[in-house]
Amino acid sequence: MARFIKKGKQEIGLSPDDLKFRGKKKANEVLLRIIDFDETSLEEDALQLVRDVLKYKEKDTVTWLNVDGLHNAAIMKEIAETFDLETLVLAEVMHTQARPRVIEYDNCILISIKMLQQNEESHLINVENLSIILTDTVLISFQEKRGDVFEPVRERIRKQKRRIRHGGIDYLTFALLDIVIDNYLYVLSVLGEKIETLEDNLLLNPNEVVINEINNYKRELNFLRKSIKPAKEMIFTLAKMESEFIKEATYVHYKELEDNISQANEVSDSYREILSDQLNIYHTTISSKLNDVMKFLTVFSVIFIPLTFIAGIYGTNFDFLPELHYRYSYFIMLGVMVVIALGMLVYFKRNKWL
Amino acid sequence: MARFIKKGKQEIGLSPDDLKFRGKKKANEVLLRIIDFDETSLEEDALQLVRDVLKYKEKDTVTWLNVDGLHNAAIMKEIAETFDLETLVLAEVMHTQARPRVIEYDNCILISIKMLQQNEESHLINVENLSIILTDTVLISFQEKRGDVFEPVRERIRKQKRRIRHGGIDYLTFALLDIVIDNYLYVLSVLGEKIETLEDNLLLNPNEVVINEINNYKRELNFLRKSIKPAKEMIFTLAKMESEFIKEATYVHYKELEDNISQANEVSDSYREILSDQLNIYHTTISSKLNDVMKFLTVFSVIFIPLTFIAGIYGTNFDFLPELHYRYSYFIMLGVMVVIALGMLVYFKRNKWL
Amino acid sequence: MARFIKKGKQEIGLSPDDLKFRGKKKANEVLLRIIDFDETSLEEDALQLVRDVLKYKEKDTVTWLNVDGLHNAAIMKEIAETFDLETLVLAEVMHTQARPRVIEYDNCILISIKMLQQNEESHLINVENLSIILTDTVLISFQEKRGDVFEPVRERIRKQKRRIRHGGIDYLTFALLDIVIDNYLYVLSVLGEKIETLEDNLLLNPNEVVINEINNYKRELNFLRKSIKPAKEMIFTLAKMESEFIKEATYVHYKELEDNISQANEVSDSYREILSDQLNIYHTTISSKLNDVMKFLTVFSVIFIPLTFIAGIYGTNFDFLPELHYRYSYFIMLGVMVVIALGMLVYFKRNKWL
Amino acid sequence: MARFIKKGKQEIGLSPDDLKFRGKKKANEVLLRIIDFDETSLEEDALQLVRDVLKYKEKDTVTWLNVDGLHNAAIMKEIAETFDLETLVLAEVMHTQARPRVIEYDNCILISIKMLQQNEESHLINVENLSIILTDTVLISFQEKRGDVFEPVRERIRKQKRRIRHGGIDYLTFALLDIVIDNYLYVLSVLGEKIETLEDNLLLNPNEVVINEINNYKRELNFLRKSIKPAKEMIFTLAKMESEFIKEATYVHYKELEDNISQANEVSDSYREILSDQLNIYHTTISSKLNDVMKFLTVFSVIFIPLTFIAGIYGTNFDFLPELHYRYSYFIMLGVMVVIALGMLVYFKRNKWL
Amino acid sequence: MARFIKKGKQEIGLSPDDLKFRGKKKANEVLLRIIDFDETSLEEDALQLVRDVLKYKEKDTVTWLNVDGLHNAAIMKEIAETFDLETLVLAEVMHTQARPRVIEYDNCILISIKMLQQNEESHLINVENLSIILTDTVLISFQEKRGDVFEPVRERIRKQKRRIRHGGIDYLTFALLDIVIDNYLYVLSVLGEKIETLEDNLLLNPNEVVINEINNYKRELNFLRKSIKPAKEMIFTLAKMESEFIKEATYVHYKELEDNISQANEVSDSYREILSDQLNIYHTTISSKLNDVMKFLTVFSVIFIPLTFIAGIYGTNFDFLPELHYRYSYFIMLGVMVVIALGMLVYFKRNKWL
Repeated sequence: MARFIKKGKQEIGLSPDDLKFRGKKKANEVLLRIIDFDETSLEEDALQLVRDVLKYKEKDTVTWLNVDGLHNAAIMKEIAETFDLETLVLAEVMHTQARPRVIEYDNCILISIKMLQQNEESHLINVENLSIILTDTVLISFQEKRGDVFEPVRERIRKQKRRIRHGGIDYLTFALLDIVIDNYLYVLSVLGEKIETLEDNLLLNPNEVVINEINNYKRELNFLRKSIKPAKEMIFTLAKMESEFIKEATYVHYKELEDNISQANEVSDSYREILSDQLNIYHTTISSKLNDVMKFLTVFSVIFIPLTFIAGIYGTNFDFLPELHYRYSYFIMLGVMVVIALGMLVYFKRNKWL
Repeated sequence: MARFIKKGKQEIGLSPDDLKFRGKKKANEVLLRIIDFDETSLEEDALQLVRDVLKYKEKDTVTWLNVDGLHNAAIMKEIAETFDLETLVLAEVMHTQARPRVIEYDNCILISIKMLQQNEESHLINVENLSIILTDTVLISFQEKRGDVFEPVRERIRKQKRRIRHGGIDYLTFALLDIVIDNYLYVLSVLGEKIETLEDNLLLNPNEVVINEINNYKRELNFLRKSIKPAKEMIFTLAKMESEFIKEATYVHYKELEDNISQANEVSDSYREILSDQLNIYHTTISSKLNDVMKFLTVFSVIFIPLTFIAGIYGTNFDFLPELHYRYSYFIMLGVMVVIALGMLVYFKRNKWL
Repeated sequence: MARFIKKGKQEIGLSPDDLKFRGKKKANEVLLRIIDFDETSLEEDALQLVRDVLKYKEKDTVTWLNVDGLHNAAIMKEIAETFDLETLVLAEVMHTQARPRVIEYDNCILISIKMLQQNEESHLINVENLSIILTDTVLISFQEKRGDVFEPVRERIRKQKRRIRHGGIDYLTFALLDIVIDNYLYVLSVLGEKIETLEDNLLLNPNEVVINEINNYKRELNFLRKSIKPAKEMIFTLAKMESEFIKEATYVHYKELEDNISQANEVSDSYREILSDQLNIYHTTISSKLNDVMKFLTVFSVIFIPLTFIAGIYGTNFDFLPELHYRYSYFIMLGVMVVIALGMLVYFKRNKWL
Repeated sequence: MARFIKKGKQEIGLSPDDLKFRGKKKANEVLLRIIDFDETSLEEDALQLVRDVLKYKEKDTVTWLNVDGLHNAAIMKEIAETFDLETLVLAEVMHTQARPRVIEYDNCILISIKMLQQNEESHLINVENLSIILTDTVLISFQEKRGDVFEPVRERIRKQKRRIRHGGIDYLTFALLDIVIDNYLYVLSVLGEKIETLEDNLLLNPNEVVINEINNYKRELNFLRKSIKPAKEMIFTLAKMESEFIKEATYVHYKELEDNISQANEVSDSYREILSDQLNIYHTTISSKLNDVMKFLTVFSVIFIPLTFIAGIYGTNFDFLPELHYRYSYFIMLGVMVVIALGMLVYFKRNKWL
Repeated sequence: MARFIKKGKQEIGLSPDDLKFRGKKKANEVLLRIIDFDETSLEEDALQLVRDVLKYKEKDTVTWLNVDGLHNAAIMKEIAETFDLETLVLAEVMHTQARPRVIEYDNCILISIKMLQQNEESHLINVENLSIILTDTVLISFQEKRGDVFEPVRERIRKQKRRIRHGGIDYLTFALLDIVIDNYLYVLSVLGEKIETLEDNLLLNPNEVVINEINNYKRELNFLRKSIKPAKEMIFTLAKMESEFIKEATYVHYKELEDNISQANEVSDSYREILSDQLNIYHTTISSKLNDVMKFLTVFSVIFIPLTFIAGIYGTNFDFLPELHYRYSYFIMLGVMVVIALGMLVYFKRNKWL
């Protein structure tokens, strides 16, 4: 299957509010976790049924429902009904192959973004689509599989006096997006370290391993850029959106998201240039080494050519070839050969051909 | 004929409202199909005469007239009169070589876009111009030849409770354009799969077949981009248009079209970069293989050069050449040759020239 | 003289309203042709004197004065006086080397654009500067030499019922610019056909003729782009201009000009990319052919090297060289040589070096 | 010293209103020339002291003070006081290394632009910073050294009936800037002619002289672009500025400056592309010639290889080598050699290797 | 650690108002210096405790607090409390790895920019993050370590009559940023001088030292651009900001900052192009030298090939080889060899292969 885009023939012409999961199923069960808090109170729970959320929803507190696993259309439908959302919104959530985007609906905002996570063991990068639905009192976050990426936010919520406890839904959104973008920066910095380490190897020992690594990093970077570049567009749209769900005071934080995502973009541009420079340096080094070898070998051959020619002349069988009959001819010939060889060596050295 | 642009000398200076078909005739007969529906009723029909549409037109329902085949000026003129459109609009419809565009007229909007379809059997991509005329109660779609690309939309209309039944003309327009853009994404994903498959072949077995494939894919991608890039511009213009024919509520769907066409553009950009990287990798691999061969051959020749030279010396016919007369000279010479050859081999190995 | 820009030292510091012809004189006499029409009446005439135009000017009809030849300052001055234009405007008309531009004056609009025409016989492209002055009742078009490029428009005017007869000055302007841009598209399509034809030759028979053709087409395309790119800018400025001389109803046509000139730009971009791809393919093909030849020759030489060496050994004159005296030595040597040669051939074949 | 930027360590942290000359002193004395005119009167004078300007300043006429030489801080200070300008403005004038820019102050506009002049004798291009201060009744122009570049404007002023006599300060500014931009176009056209002449040499006789010329022109063009590109930005800012010092009627002329500077930019872009194409053509031609030589030499060597091998065989000293003893062996061998050589020649010719 | 971005895993999910130093500690102690001035008075002091600043803060004068060293969270917290700033602002100050940015808070503006300084001894460039907090009466500048870069501004403040004494906080901000940008220009001019010096070496003596230098300068330039490019964005945002803290009269200076930072960007672009041109020239020169050597060696070998062949023929042992028995055969053969060699030399010379 193509890595960059997956579009099945059967997806063409689907109604936009069809609750059909378009992606690769990454989780078995759907997990519903809730955190409900305000400045003074805090409740954490794992829900069995969607409708259990109702008791939290009606309170005046901030309710954060985290849904891990998107493939269950029935649960999605229930969520839509419980929170009075259009099915269209949930259909968008299930469409995990789409671009990062922010859409304003009548009673909610939908944010969709790719989440990149460095897997410290396998050295691979996991990609997952994160969707956030933002209403006036509820934030619903959808992840494709169970993950602990938002644990630091939960920790901050658990500590009573933190800003997040009184920042409201829009500040919570910022906190989640901030983690996503911080992960972009982290993933880039891990890749960047590998790229910069490569540089020393490049000059000392340029071989096919190095070129393969460069090409791999290039492909990996291209892959990251596919998520990061449209995320920038999305974040800038969000920060410019004049929505009732976002308080004036939170915009300064959204501005910070803009700065961070811009930095991620610039860093990825820089690494791209570095990789392209490294490729050039690699090719230059390789071809310069090859040229040196070829020049050496050619010079070596060229020195023997006149010598072999001279030997050839005295190998002829002419009846009258006076030199053949002198006593020291052979040694003189050897001497002349040495002189010629040395002369050529000196000449080549002087011209820096050796 | 040029693939990228066809402009006949005789087309220069035509009046913009000349009902002259400018393109390649792809159908024999003109086929008129109608679907007329609202939330409760649904009628489907194939019309013999344009004027048969009148009974549908006057009703308050959504009337969708699909015209397959554009070459018949008489029918076009009849359509113009029946729906009270300027002939200019129909002339635009017949101008299938023009760019994707959206034009707002007094009593209608004209949308023109290239439709790309993957032919699953021939592995070719069909291009066709689709025009949509949008008035307050009627949508007329024009295709160059008979096709079933909009069948999923008809299916959705036939099912009673779908959103499309009460979405109005502008929602129907969205549904049609959505299919067109979904087809872009599908065509790109099919091409993309081929491109990504190529990658493995590239390193294992780089040959002229591979380079031709890369160049073919490049040409194919260029061709797709010619349709997709101006379509993006057109979709963005449409989504920003403040027209009476487009309801506020539908803009959220037009926004989705924007996201999808942007994704198509980005994906095509990505594949372009990948192809260009692949070309580079191909050339690097090929030239590195060639260099290895040449280096091997050169080293091989170079080893024989001093050996042949020594044989040449003892092939000379000097009267006084003492070595010729010793008992083991020949074997000593052979031994010396072996030593020289081995010495050079070791030297070349050490310097990684072999 | 430089093809891309001609600026004489003596032109520096000229006053902008100096009626001095800055260009290459392309016509001998100035030809004044007039068409005066409205929905019902039509008069066509060739004027001897500028002032003869007065009788048409005063009528309420559309008056189109076509001036072929720009070098006569006296006539220009007369035109300025007759139509009450600033001399500045006419000076601009005479400045044929300037960029395509549209300028709004108090009582007129000046449009200046490069006209490209394919000469079907010489296969060359003629470039000429077209200027149009647009007042409320008069359109004056200035061409550098006599031409029949606007004949189709005249034909449309002569037919009574065409839109052009009641479209007014601004519609007439559209009709003229439409012809200019149609000619761009035609010129591009002629060049494009040549470029696309080249493609087949490229792989079958890459030689210096092909590379020269590619470089010629590249230069020709660059030359076209020099006219087409600023024309796009000009057309977009014109279409955005809110002028009293342009009726609301005509803007839809100016929009069409925008689409056509954009298409011309995109097509020229595409051909540029194609040419650049063709250059790459050419170089790849050439160098791959060369590499094959060189590899073949090298392999050929390498096979003879050990054989020649063996012959050299048995050409030595050692007194004690046992093999020389056996009965079948010579034939055994020949046999060994054949075995070696075949062995190397097989080795090279297996490694795909041949 | 760096050509592209000169920034001394001691300049860091200077106050912006320090009257310190930052540049290379190009004149010895400061020359003050004045032209004072209106529609009817005209006075020209060379001033000894700045304060002599006062009698002109108070009149209602246009006063143009031209200052040649910027290094004298005392005179600058006097000018500031006489015309009631902030010292900041004059400090900017003395900062000749800065970018072209236009700044609006309370009582004046400052325009700073690089002036390029072709030196017809030395074939070099002189660069000089021109500053213009524009108040309601006075225009002060500052040149780094004495020059006659504005002589055509003075000539036009001297002739009584020219537009410039009643155009006011803003029109005079236009006239001066027009000369600067005309000089850009002239310098570009001189360089362009050289570049286009190069083209023929390129194919006929590609050698190191040509490549050096291309690199020189490239460097020269880069140098020109450094002045022309920011000048475009400056001119566009000026033309968009809504200042009390610029009359409505003059904007049409500033629009013309925009067109001319845009043309200069486009021309410089074109020449850049041409130079880059020329470099490519040069390299292609060179490498194709080299390849032909190498192929010829290799083919030549290869033909002799089997011949030398055959001679080697019959040079062996086997006791039993039957061919050696036949009467015509030698001539048959020669014949076989000719046949082999001809056969190879034919083969190579057929494969177009020769 | 990666040079271009450092993002620790532990930083992910930090609250934006955590006072945690994110960077490399460059100073041991925190140094607090204060300058308090207005047009008439001036006080300079080094503070022991943050709260000592209070007596200055309450006065109506301009108070500039300079903080060297950012790692001490306690001091930061104290500063926040003393000046009534949100901890968020100080957290931003401590986040030295972030992008240059300007943020408007309720009661202050935060400016963050990278400061580049040429170290004259080590020829290295120091990078340091500078943050400026701007309130209505206080400017707090934060540097990562103790430095004297702002000494010229202090000098100007110490002199009584300078503009800076009555320019206010916003003018002081300008003065500091001006020094930062002047340093950009200085650093670029030092690098530029080295790059331009390289040019002569490039043609005379192209070797690996040169290529390494080019690659080093390229890397260094990339590094500078990483600071300068986002700084431009920041400066332009600042200059467009409509803030109560920035007086109308100061905008003209901010405009100057825009010009200077634009110049820095353009200069860096120019040097980038120059470096890339130099790389091309280097490769061209190197490969042209190599080609000359290879051509010479090949021609040399080729001349000996027919000569050796002739010698080979007369080395054969045929019984009947008439030439062997003529008296002058040997000398004739030598003569023929000379003629062949000379003939080939002439031929090669004529074809310019030598």
